[in-house]
Amino acid sequence: VILTLKEIADKTGAEIVGDPEKTITGVSSFEDADSGELTFASDPKFLKRMDQTRAGAIFVPPEVVVPESGGPDLLIIDNPRLHFFRILALFHPLQGPMPGISPKATLGEGVRVGRDVAIFPGVFVGDGTLIGDGVSLMPGTYLGQNTVIGNGTMIKPNVTIMENSRIGKRVIIHSGTVIGSDGFGFTQDISRHEKIPHAGFVQIDDDVEIGAGNTIDRGTFGRTWIKEGVKTDNLVHIAHNVVVGRHTLLVAQVGIAGSSSLGDNVIVAGKAGISGHLKVGDNAIVGPGAGVLHDVPPGKIVSGMPQMDHKIWLKVGNIIPRLPEMRKKLLALEKKFERFRKN
Amino acid sequence: VILTLKEIADKTGAEIVGDPEKTITGVSSFEDADSGELTFASDPKFLKRMDQTRAGAIFVPPEVVVPESGGPDLLIIDNPRLHFFRILALFHPLQGPMPGISPKATLGEGVRVGRDVAIFPGVFVGDGTLIGDGVSLMPGTYLGQNTVIGNGTMIKPNVTIMENSRIGKRVIIHSGTVIGSDGFGFTQDISRHEKIPHAGFVQIDDDVEIGAGNTIDRGTFGRTWIKEGVKTDNLVHIAHNVVVGRHTLLVAQVGIAGSSSLGDNVIVAGKAGISGHLKVGDNAIVGPGAGVLHDVPPGKIVSGMPQMDHKIWLKVGNIIPRLPEMRKKLLALEKKFERFRKN
Amino acid sequence: VILTLKEIADKTGAEIVGDPEKTITGVSSFEDADSGELTFASDPKFLKRMDQTRAGAIFVPPEVVVPESGGPDLLIIDNPRLHFFRILALFHPLQGPMPGISPKATLGEGVRVGRDVAIFPGVFVGDGTLIGDGVSLMPGTYLGQNTVIGNGTMIKPNVTIMENSRIGKRVIIHSGTVIGSDGFGFTQDISRHEKIPHAGFVQIDDDVEIGAGNTIDRGTFGRTWIKEGVKTDNLVHIAHNVVVGRHTLLVAQVGIAGSSSLGDNVIVAGKAGISGHLKVGDNAIVGPGAGVLHDVPPGKIVSGMPQMDHKIWLKVGNIIPRLPEMRKKLLALEKKFERFRKN
Repeated sequence: VILTLKEIADKTGAEIVGDPEKTITGVSSFEDADSGELTFASDPKFLKRMDQTRAGAIFVPPEVVVPESGGPDLLIIDNPRLHFFRILALFHPLQGPMPGISPKATLGEGVRVGRDVAIFPGVFVGDGTLIGDGVSLMPGTYLGQNTVIGNGTMIKPNVTIMENSRIGKRVIIHSGTVIGSDGFGFTQDISRHEKIPHAGFVQIDDDVEIGAGNTIDRGTFGRTWIKEGVKTDNLVHIAHNVVVGRHTLLVAQVGIAGSSSLGDNVIVAGKAGISGHLKVGDNAIVGPGAGVLHDVPPGKIVSGMPQMDHKIWLKVGNIIPRLPEMRKKLLALEKKFERFRKN
Repeated sequence: VILTLKEIADKTGAEIVGDPEKTITGVSSFEDADSGELTFASDPKFLKRMDQTRAGAIFVPPEVVVPESGGPDLLIIDNPRLHFFRILALFHPLQGPMPGISPKATLGEGVRVGRDVAIFPGVFVGDGTLIGDGVSLMPGTYLGQNTVIGNGTMIKPNVTIMENSRIGKRVIIHSGTVIGSDGFGFTQDISRHEKIPHAGFVQIDDDVEIGAGNTIDRGTFGRTWIKEGVKTDNLVHIAHNVVVGRHTLLVAQVGIAGSSSLGDNVIVAGKAGISGHLKVGDNAIVGPGAGVLHDVPPGKIVSGMPQMDHKIWLKVGNIIPRLPEMRKKLLALEKKFERFRKN
Repeated sequence: VILTLKEIADKTGAEIVGDPEKTITGVSSFEDADSGELTFASDPKFLKRMDQTRAGAIFVPPEVVVPESGGPDLLIIDNPRLHFFRILALFHPLQGPMPGISPKATLGEGVRVGRDVAIFPGVFVGDGTLIGDGVSLMPGTYLGQNTVIGNGTMIKPNVTIMENSRIGKRVIIHSGTVIGSDGFGFTQDISRHEKIPHAGFVQIDDDVEIGAGNTIDRGTFGRTWIKEGVKTDNLVHIAHNVVVGRHTLLVAQVGIAGSSSLGDNVIVAGKAGISGHLKVGDNAIVGPGAGVLHDVPPGKIVSGMPQMDHKIWLKVGNIIPRLPEMRKKLLALEKKFERFRKN
């Protein structure tokens, strides 16, 4: 792919300060870009030292101070980062070519497949499953019976999607992830745990991206539901009948126990855990490693274990390492007071 | 599957209050069940509002107050939940049909296979492995050499079971799980870590269920041993030479370090970690996110990091967010005392 | 494999106290070894009770007190543990036979393969990938396009290695692990998270061992870099553009957020988390479950959440369970003081 600055400006609406016919052959970071490459600067620390990148051109925000002479050509636009990554996507397309259905894949009875798909060797598709247009199923992927995969969805290698799952459009699921495993539910018969068959399913809506090594259990009844635009990082666990609201972010190694429900635009930071049967409101934020044991109201920021207001947690975090000193102070004060009282 | 109330009563021993010839075509939750479906109520909150389910029939405990008129037909029995899920299992069998051995599977030399098995495409079975009657090996599963899989065991897609593993009867292993990986053990040669070959194996006893994305390492010597009836949730890590006692439950994202030993009927809640070479006694409970750094006596409940008695942890959890206030109080008291003493 | 004590002494430089012609047919632990087996004792607790092992021979350090009569034959050497495991490796070779390239594997265009390899059924190798001499790719492994696998590297079953990854020599990667998944990075367009294409790659240097179920993301630009001799345990998460220094150890369930950099010979204990864009110096140690939120200087030992000096953490850990008592003391002292002042 080769683009001129003019072509990049036409695609994004940027204003050019420089040579519209200059050609760009790749994209890179501020530090690493060379004279044929495009980069971006939105952070003031980069905007101050624009003479230090060797990039051929640079997306910058309107408030930039254009250097009197020299430096890279500029592409002035709101949200340089966003537009930079959109141009990057032209150089690094997510999808490779769509080679059709490999004879080394196994398709069950009644499977229906859309146009322009890539079904690689070693893929197994269960009976009655529907695969939309432009879907990519990479090697080693398993789809159970009666699953639905929406148009433009990409399933990376060695993903497991169990029966009756419903996956939306333009979804990306990274390798090693398991969708629709049985929930962790048992009934007690005297001293034994007897398995509960899990009759529900997993529903993943449009434009969701699921990281590598996630486990998302099916509902006991009904669905475990990952709504539109949700993004999960790696090694995230989502239990049976959890609902994750629109555009919510779950960072690496988060765990959410059964039947809890998260609102829209929630952020759960890395390694946090959320107990079962709780509600986390819209726009709430859960701090890294937090242990959420009761509901979180909308817009609230909580941290710590057990959870508390994040501002309190910041103070608590300062005090915890001073607990030994605080204890000494208390014991000393006690003694001083007793001595004083006796005299 | 269609069952009459009489057939359900015959299978369970329930007493019918209603029409024995009524037909049931499915099962569902209290809220979602419709007039052809069976549900159950054991919780008082459901028992109080039995007129609010549209279910055709409902398992209830003997202490139920039978409504004067209307409401669903009743099936009166001890432990309604248990019997409900047993009937559910008739509608949602765990095993699909057993199609035999796929020509797209690869079986090594000296592999012996029992009757009535399902070995799907993409399965690899190493030399000398024994596969019992009624075993299901789903697509993408790997079994190393000289492994034993007991009767009625189900291995879900994309599971890896390394050489010499011994898996019992009626075991279920969910997708993405790895059994028998090498333990994390090295010897130090000057500044390098030199690999210890792991000569041991993993033994999993009858009626165990292992969740998705687990990692269970083989012993350095001898076995890592998961005893009868154990259930693990997703993303659980069990290191080399760990012993997990009978009917113990390990919730999601738990980690157990090398050579630790858990008793029978232990519960380890989500995200808890147990250090190496420790003993956790029978019937002990480890709270969510707890960090167990020394032995836990039988029957004891511990929480927190580092671990403490759970009752103390509940108090501590209340005090931690009030530490800033407590510190202020202490400093204020110190000042007041000094001022008082000087006067 | 059968070895005489003389052969073992020749391979290791040990001094024999006993019969050089005695034959050894296996190795085992101090407790389990029988009369045909070799074991080792370096710990004083074993050295004191050498008459209690049934082993045929035993590696011991030079400071051993040779028993007057009886007991096993001795092989005297510095670092008995290291030499024991080297002999163990002769009895339990890591690699099986190298059967060449299975016709059930799929190799893309332009793939080049070295000598003496094992490429098992169900392996998929993308276009342009280079596979060195003596490489083993076990069943279900996926290698993306333009990947490089160095000589003597072993990839266990069901591993996923995405495009452009560079894997060194004598590397071991355990099952279920995902290398080169996209990082967790998005740009914000009004209320939606827009995917950042990840243009970078993962580089793993020589003699690294990666545990089971790890997830190692590719760089956004440039590389995520695991340097020589690093060892990771199971279920470890390493985000985009992280650098892990030489011979560093990452214990199970550790997570490292984007762009953080760890020095050489660092140890990160189980379940610890390291935030993004931080530096952890050479020889630093991070305690189990610690939450690292700012840089760790070289050689420093930190624990706790938030991180603190490990020695302080030991004291803090003792005080936390006594917080309820400390609070009581404080309130009582306050009262006593007020009463005293009033009188």
